[in-house]
Amino acid sequence: MSPHAFDVAIALAPQGDGVWQGHTSPAYANMIGPFGGATAAQALNAVLQHPGRQGEPVAFTVNFAAALADGPFLVYARPVRTNRSTQHWIVETRQGEQTVATATAVTALRRDTWGATEVPMPDVPRPRDVAAPGRKGSVEWFNRYDIRFIDGGFPPAWDGADTQDSITQLWVRDNPARPLDFASLTALSDVFFPRIWRRRATMTPIGTVSMTVYFHCSQAQLQATGTGYLLGQAQAQAFRDGYFDQTAQLWNEAGELLVTTHQVVYYKE
Amino acid sequence: MSPHAFDVAIALAPQGDGVWQGHTSPAYANMIGPFGGATAAQALNAVLQHPGRQGEPVAFTVNFAAALADGPFLVYARPVRTNRSTQHWIVETRQGEQTVATATAVTALRRDTWGATEVPMPDVPRPRDVAAPGRKGSVEWFNRYDIRFIDGGFPPAWDGADTQDSITQLWVRDNPARPLDFASLTALSDVFFPRIWRRRATMTPIGTVSMTVYFHCSQAQLQATGTGYLLGQAQAQAFRDGYFDQTAQLWNEAGELLVTTHQVVYYKE
Repeated sequence: MSPHAFDVAIALAPQGDGVWQGHTSPAYANMIGPFGGATAAQALNAVLQHPGRQGEPVAFTVNFAAALADGPFLVYARPVRTNRSTQHWIVETRQGEQTVATATAVTALRRDTWGATEVPMPDVPRPRDVAAPGRKGSVEWFNRYDIRFIDGGFPPAWDGADTQDSITQLWVRDNPARPLDFASLTALSDVFFPRIWRRRATMTPIGTVSMTVYFHCSQAQLQATGTGYLLGQAQAQAFRDGYFDQTAQLWNEAGELLVTTHQVVYYKE
Repeated sequence: MSPHAFDVAIALAPQGDGVWQGHTSPAYANMIGPFGGATAAQALNAVLQHPGRQGEPVAFTVNFAAALADGPFLVYARPVRTNRSTQHWIVETRQGEQTVATATAVTALRRDTWGATEVPMPDVPRPRDVAAPGRKGSVEWFNRYDIRFIDGGFPPAWDGADTQDSITQLWVRDNPARPLDFASLTALSDVFFPRIWRRRATMTPIGTVSMTVYFHCSQAQLQATGTGYLLGQAQAQAFRDGYFDQTAQLWNEAGELLVTTHQVVYYKE
């Protein structure tokens, strides 16, 4: 059996001393450069692969400095502080002499505590009752996900009408299905199409500049989630002078909130 | 006239080549180490002071690796990528050989575009109609802010009752008043007391591990906001296995959304 396209995409060859070599993947190509979720997952994967890593990811921020050129890249992952139960990482992804992405991560040994969720999973139809889009995506990475829009899918017409809100709800999993892990969950955090396209029914050029992922889940919980669908919900809070934000949540089918994630995105007009 | 305590707290002495020396400030002391908002503002200030800076802050993430010891620290701010309209920064704050905070920032030259806000300012009483807390804060930094709780202030009793939600709404500005800028806005993003204290009416030990600030405002807008109050609203989305998140917004009195901000916080139990 050939490996899953996502595993190919995030594969890193150790170069010693916290340096890994990866390669952009045509399977995750975006309009210009690769899908940001793949670039994010590659950066986090260097932390996950690091022999000195302690604990599981709690917080991860990636900044997209430039579109990656097709080809190899190096990821530099450096644990800058190791405490008793937390560890802090600085990550840089480079092509040649150029930095193409920066990231920071916090990993931690988590303990069982009191817990609660304040954003309940929205009441939505089950994945099997929601139609998958009939057409292929216009960008390749979109075909790597089984996305079922519940509400706020692509506008029926790109007519520039202001729809007054930017909410999208969807079910999503890797296509073909793949057991969930921290790397794929990171990529899935970037699976929403640009909120400004949703809000304005206009395909203005965009580019995510920074994304933060907070993990509210353990490895065991991800294993239990397995190849199930995730419910994603995303909305912008503000569009102003060329940048908008997006705030999003990902739940598993059991209704557990796995991730809260935020990003800020450049838009042209 | 003596300088404002906040200006003293974020003052940095250039050491050459992107390195600055600062000093922790007793005026912003927290239970252990300084107020995280001050540490965040100091790190951002190194970017703001950098002679090579291009544009204004759009995204800023700071990771708190350790409580700072009282005394001097060095901030290392490095522009790792400068594009036509965006610039990417890696920042480290160190004491001796130890990294105490890491940060990344994106600064950008912003252009006038179509804009909208999807989270309207809540309908609340004006600042002058909301009482300031009568008592001094138990930590010094709290006295550096004029905070007027509208809803979700400190629990009337620390009795461990689960209040079922963690929302707080407050008016806030520096005390004494100080014209708003990107550094003070960064500190103000961390002004909310821990959501778990609010939710559970229990002062369990906590520590913010990572905070992200998205700026939806220009320098001109901050100048126009001046010494006015900001309306802050904060809520946790999930408390799980020792970490909870907080998502928050800050509006000026004119109802403009200046900041959306997120953090993840360790809690003991």
